[in-house]
Amino acid sequence: MTARPAQSPNGAAEVPEVVVSRLPQYVRALTRLSQQGTTVVSSQQLGELIQMTPAQIRKDLSYFGRFGKQGRGYSVKYLLGELRRILGLDREWRVGLVGVGRLGRAILSYPGFSPEGFRIVAAFDADPRQVGQMVGGIMVQPMHRLREGVQELGIRIGIVAVPASQVQEVIDRLVQCDVRAIVNYAPVNAQVPAHVRVRNIDPVLALQSITFYLTTLENAEKRGAAR
Amino acid sequence: MTARPAQSPNGAAEVPEVVVSRLPQYVRALTRLSQQGTTVVSSQQLGELIQMTPAQIRKDLSYFGRFGKQGRGYSVKYLLGELRRILGLDREWRVGLVGVGRLGRAILSYPGFSPEGFRIVAAFDADPRQVGQMVGGIMVQPMHRLREGVQELGIRIGIVAVPASQVQEVIDRLVQCDVRAIVNYAPVNAQVPAHVRVRNIDPVLALQSITFYLTTLENAEKRGAAR
Repeated sequence: MTARPAQSPNGAAEVPEVVVSRLPQYVRALTRLSQQGTTVVSSQQLGELIQMTPAQIRKDLSYFGRFGKQGRGYSVKYLLGELRRILGLDREWRVGLVGVGRLGRAILSYPGFSPEGFRIVAAFDADPRQVGQMVGGIMVQPMHRLREGVQELGIRIGIVAVPASQVQEVIDRLVQCDVRAIVNYAPVNAQVPAHVRVRNIDPVLALQSITFYLTTLENAEKRGAAR
Repeated sequence: MTARPAQSPNGAAEVPEVVVSRLPQYVRALTRLSQQGTTVVSSQQLGELIQMTPAQIRKDLSYFGRFGKQGRGYSVKYLLGELRRILGLDREWRVGLVGVGRLGRAILSYPGFSPEGFRIVAAFDADPRQVGQMVGGIMVQPMHRLREGVQELGIRIGIVAVPASQVQEVIDRLVQCDVRAIVNYAPVNAQVPAHVRVRNIDPVLALQSITFYLTTLENAEKRGAAR
């Protein structure tokens, strides 16, 4: 999560990265509404679904244009279509995995990617014992095949599931192969050039912020008990 | 990521959830600085490490008190200690895992949790074939042992690694056992009471926002080529 602003597809305003990070949640909520047959939704209702204030929703969406009229709510179908287009979800993306240890294998067998248009088409590993194995219908390739694999298969996104000590080196190689979007599972903030985006999947960061609420609750209970 | 505000430990201001979510990144950067022997850091330098603007850093920290003097920077040791205390990272937290499929097993063998004070002390699964197996030094217990396990072992945090269709039911059971902090790996937004916090570890959401930048880059290149 960075504060580096991005150009919007309209070239109009700069969109803060936190806003971009929230858009997929809008897409998910709108998809559910659409499946339930809902045609119009207010920012209030949408806010209840994704635990945001109506004002924040209106502000987030305002970066991308005008999607609704004051007091009339949003057309579910139109807003969903526009957000999918803005995010580039109206097409398939080819993904390459680096690292097929236990975590990499769980990622390869994860059923949630392909229904959403993310197809893992290749897997790479530096360990000769992994190379040549079939995992989830994909044959593990050696790292020296990375550039060819990326080019031949049209890989635009890399998923990195290697130990922390190898992350920077692997990400550097992906960047050299012109992969500009990387999802990193190791607890390391890798350094990348400005045109490359990294998203960290980091359960430790999630745990470390959730304890704030446990600690706050405990302190409140202690204060209550002391009264 | 929600906009629901939380009471700060000082009971003073309400802290937006996005700010709380960022604090662990501050802790990580300050820890590295401390290990490198750095004693004082400016908001500019800290911002470069975690890709945020100095103004945003000052604003984030202002929710929790005054940590530095204008123009003098922050004491690395003091700020790190205070943030760790605020987040509750100055103690060990006991964690229970529900779901020991492929993903759950990867979580159990992940070496990153315990050095950060998160100890997985129990694992549960509804599948009788999993129950009784030893995984990562922990014996898998049946779901009907959940309440006893949570109470006997002092589990405060639940990690949920079950299929999407079972997530709501499993989270309901954790909440009934008075677990108030849950990390969910399935692509489902579970409903929980207001006193319970859920963090979703969701690679699809990460992929769906990173494609925004790929799409934006492509559109910019097309515009450039058309000129």
